[in-house]
This record gives sequence, C-alpha cells and structure tokens, in this order.
Amino acid sequence: MALMEFSIMPLDKGAGLSEYVARALTIIDDSGLDYRLNPMGTVVEGEWDELLGLLTKCYRDQEKDSGRIIIQAKFDCRKGVSGALDRKIRSVEEKAGRRFKV
Amino acid sequence: MALMEFSIMPLDKGAGLSEYVARALTIIDDSGLDYRLNPMGTVVEGEWDELLGLLTKCYRDQEKDSGRIIIQAKFDCRKGVSGALDRKIRSVEEKAGRRFKV
Amino acid sequence: MALMEFSIMPLDKGAGLSEYVARALTIIDDSGLDYRLNPMGTVVEGEWDELLGLLTKCYRDQEKDSGRIIIQAKFDCRKGVSGALDRKIRSVEEKAGRRFKV
Amino acid sequence: MALMEFSIMPLDKGAGLSEYVARALTIIDDSGLDYRLNPMGTVVEGEWDELLGLLTKCYRDQEKDSGRIIIQAKFDCRKGVSGALDRKIRSVEEKAGRRFKV
Repeated sequence: MALMEFSIMPLDKGAGLSEYVARALTIIDDSGLDYRLNPMGTVVEGEWDELLGLLTKCYRDQEKDSGRIIIQAKFDCRKGVSGALDRKIRSVEEKAGRRFKV
Repeated sequence: MALMEFSIMPLDKGAGLSEYVARALTIIDDSGLDYRLNPMGTVVEGEWDELLGLLTKCYRDQEKDSGRIIIQAKFDCRKGVSGALDRKIRSVEEKAGRRFKV
Repeated sequence: MALMEFSIMPLDKGAGLSEYVARALTIIDDSGLDYRLNPMGTVVEGEWDELLGLLTKCYRDQEKDSGRIIIQAKFDCRKGVSGALDRKIRSVEEKAGRRFKV
Repeated sequence: MALMEFSIMPLDKGAGLSEYVARALTIIDDSGLDYRLNPMGTVVEGEWDELLGLLTKCYRDQEKDSGRIIIQAKFDCRKGVSGALDRKIRSVEEKAGRRFKV
C-alpha cells in the first residue's frame, strides 16, 4: 500500500479555487479509498494503480473546463504496510510522548 | 498570513523516520504557531518570517546528527486572510455540500 | 501535452542515491519521451497516460529492491501546447531580456 | 552547502506566467548564487541562509502586485559538499554509463 498526498489547481480561474477543490474532493470521497483532507492537499491510501487511477479521474474532470492545470503529488510507498493514515501520526506522537494537533 | 506545508527527512537514517519527525513536531508544537499534522507533512499558519524561522529551527535541529537532509515545502500566501487552517476546509465542504474526512 | 517534473528516492539505501537515480534515468532515456535532467529531478514531456506509464515503470523498478520509496511529482498540463521543454525557458528569457543559466 | 529547487506562481494572473517567472529569474541571476533554470523551476546552490534570503526576495517582489502566491520549494542539504549543481548530474551519468539530456 502507498500514501499519495496531492493537490490539483486550475491556473486560469483566479485566486479563489474552493469550487474546484470541492469537485476533486467529491471524486475522492466517492472513490471508496480512505483519505484525509488537510488545508493544503489530500492524503489518500491505496495500491499504486488505485492511486494513479484516482489522480487521473480528478485530472480528467478539471481538464473539462480549464486550459492549464497544476498538479503536485507526493508518494510514500512502503511494502507490507496498511492503515498508514492513522498509524503514521500515532507513531510520531508515541515517539514524542505528546499529542499533536491534527 | 501564509500557510506552509512541509516535511523534513534525514536520508541517512534508514526507512523508519518517526523519531526524527517527532523532533520536528515538538519544535513546531512549542513554536506557538497554529498547525495541523497530517500523514505526509505538517501545515503551519503564520507570517512569512515566522514560517521561515520555524523551518530553519527544524533544519538546524536535524542537521546536528544527519549528513543529508531532504526538505519539501509549499507556501500559500494570501493577503488579508487569517484562520485559513480551518477556513479552507470549511469552504471546500460548503461548495461540495458535504463533510469530508479530515 | 503535459510536463511532469519528478524524483524517485529509496529511503533505505543511505545518503548516496546516484546509482538509483541512474536506473530511473536509463528508463526515462529509453522511453522515447523528450526530457531534461536537472540537479534535483527530471522534467519529461508527454501525454498524461504516457507520463503516468513512465512514472509507474520507474516505481516498479525501484520497488524490486527497496522497502520504502518516496516519489515527488509535479505536473503542468496545458491544452494545445507541445515543445514546452524549450519553449518555457525561451519565453522567460524573452520577457527578461537576458539569457539565464540552464 | 545546499541545493534549493523552487518555483513561485501568482494565482490571480491567469494561465500565462512567464512575465512573473522572468522577474524571479532576474532576481536569482543578480544574486550571484550559482543556479540552473529548468522548464519547471530553478535549482540554486548556496548556504541555508543565502537560499532563504533569495526565496524571501522573490516572494516580496511578487507580493507587490499579487493577492495570492503559491511557492513550492525542495531542499537537498548535504554536509561538506559544494559544486553539486554539476556534480550530481555527472555522478548519475557515470553510474549509468551514458550521457543524459540536460
């Protein structure tokens, strides 16, 4: 399993993008993959092909009405690990001996 | 105010890095700046100089015992906006007409 | 056409990674897609599906002998534009009225 | 010494950004630090404080006439290494036993 953190951003729609982010999040939420939205992107957990499939779905949707799109993605691929969305945060909290804001 | 999403990663410590992430999070938590930890990084809100100061503090700490460090940072700088950590997520949820996993 | 800038990095191989970067570059060079290597990553030009196919090929290769892999990718997707690898740099130089180091 | 790869992008200026990239590159070129422009960003070599100083200069310049700015930065900090802009590429070519497009 892998984690993919990503954001997708049309460049020709001005400074207010929440409408476009909402479209991507709706696709992510409907995908059935587990995810967490944060203020700068979304982290999704899945197999490699599932993650690229979801990225493609979000891209094809934005492409319909935007002439230029910027996508940033980061992958953390770790063999034999699942449930990493919560486990990574718990592991950091255990090492630090305190709870952090999530 | 600006948001800075970042992660800091020593390259010479093997695959398990939660001990090093815990050190960075402790510095962030002690900084007094508002932040949210996610499974792939941390988003902090502050003025530009505060954010770069915090990034430097985390870097100097890791530098003490690592020969090679990779840092990834993304900034979203918006004039006249504060409280963006929560506001950006609410705005996306309002546009989508549903709640997302955070 | 789109540009994809990416880097791929095993986390369990220590601080010297040029051997692993060389494997990825060999795959990129053999792909037939146009690209430019820079000191922090590689920029490739192609159709969306070609770019994700190349990313997958590089990932599957590293996965063979690494337990944890970090991939960072950035896409710039622009309708009706090709030859952007050189054109983007020329366009910046024209606007600035000077040549830059490439 | 460290390498910083970065891009800076106003979000409220439409899809054509070469004029704004040209302003950033002019500042980088005038800084005296060594750098390489690529189709998706610029890689600069310097000490940590020099790199953050340059990033700040570019940000303050864009801030003058943009209401929202996105900055992406990646750092590769390695003790006792300089001249990495060329050395990293040569090292990859040596390992691969061939020349790549740069």
